[in-house]
Amino acid sequence: MKVLITSGGTTEPIDSVRGISNFATGGLGKLTAECFLEDGHEVILLAGDKAVLPQASQRLTIITIMGTENLYEEMKRCVPLVDVVVHSMAVSDYRPLYMTGLENFPSVLTERDLLNFHPHHAKKISSKSNYQIMLLEKTPKIISFIKTWKPHVLLFGFKLLAGVTEQELIDVAKEKLISTQADFIIANDLEDIKNNQHKAFIVSTDSIERLHTKSEIADKILSVSKTYYS
Amino acid sequence: MKVLITSGGTTEPIDSVRGISNFATGGLGKLTAECFLEDGHEVILLAGDKAVLPQASQRLTIITIMGTENLYEEMKRCVPLVDVVVHSMAVSDYRPLYMTGLENFPSVLTERDLLNFHPHHAKKISSKSNYQIMLLEKTPKIISFIKTWKPHVLLFGFKLLAGVTEQELIDVAKEKLISTQADFIIANDLEDIKNNQHKAFIVSTDSIERLHTKSEIADKILSVSKTYYS
Repeated sequence: MKVLITSGGTTEPIDSVRGISNFATGGLGKLTAECFLEDGHEVILLAGDKAVLPQASQRLTIITIMGTENLYEEMKRCVPLVDVVVHSMAVSDYRPLYMTGLENFPSVLTERDLLNFHPHHAKKISSKSNYQIMLLEKTPKIISFIKTWKPHVLLFGFKLLAGVTEQELIDVAKEKLISTQADFIIANDLEDIKNNQHKAFIVSTDSIERLHTKSEIADKILSVSKTYYS
Repeated sequence: MKVLITSGGTTEPIDSVRGISNFATGGLGKLTAECFLEDGHEVILLAGDKAVLPQASQRLTIITIMGTENLYEEMKRCVPLVDVVVHSMAVSDYRPLYMTGLENFPSVLTERDLLNFHPHHAKKISSKSNYQIMLLEKTPKIISFIKTWKPHVLLFGFKLLAGVTEQELIDVAKEKLISTQADFIIANDLEDIKNNQHKAFIVSTDSIERLHTKSEIADKILSVSKTYYS
């Protein structure tokens, strides 16, 4: 099999010296890549610039990813080449449109003022204002494009929430199965992730299974993929 | 001598999964630490969580720093213990107060609405809104506290600008000498930093010297410190 794995977090630049980063370490993506490699498969790993990486291998291609636009382009190019996609990267939901001193707005402003504001382009934002406002726009949900690029690819998506009940987690995963056309959603709660402990549910339209560690999740993704293509 | 070096960048959390990071690699801080260690001195290194680090040494203490508040507390504790401070960390000028969907505001709003808004606290911000607004407040300029904590410490500050003329760079460095009470400001332009090439000016009240590489900057900081304490 050929598998595409995304791992770590994206970074959306604010200016030339700072950006908004997602904190994911890439640990699960690394483990999953290692499972597929040890079992003899080919892996393309799209990894955030701070993600932990597997050891080099002739069957492993690593591509460093910065923002969502970069990720979109690389996935569009790579998805048609693979049999399985494991999209475990923490992708920015929002990207900055601008950041500017609050004093650049009138004291009474409208939504239109905010949306139509075009600040003077600064390579590095000055630190003179007491307050800054940032306007952020939603990024495209890249996972929703994957099946349009390759309808029969086996797709594992992820959903991370924080401090919710198990039932909420499962309900949200089931919604995401439909909205993304993923075959499986691995749903996890940030509060249940500590080092190798990594409680999660792997949810499909007709099954829910509880998993407990990163290794268990990685093994499960490999075994489901092998069954699917056997 | 005992020297305190700060390096890398700070990260200010937005919620439990994302934050605003400064991109500095910590390369110059690492080199400066190595110069002082090789010359037999003791080094305390306060480093951002992604900063490159020197090899372990009995005379080296490394403390990992996240945000500006964390940096402030550690510097307040460490500055009285040292003879020299090299404050090369890229410190966030702003930290997020909140990030919330634009629809949570009235369509006409005032500055007071923005400043007094208290969003429902979310552990992880939902991705339902098309636009989000973030309000950020200025962080305290930590460098300005250093001489109040230890008046006679030898202080090297840094000023990074992007795409300015040499004259502007020197003028801003001279202003910063006064506002921070630093003994030296190392002024550099982002566009003149590429791998080991690192053009900079080291500016004091009565001298300006041009430097060209990270090694030259690190060596200069060491030699100035040795002269000062000889």
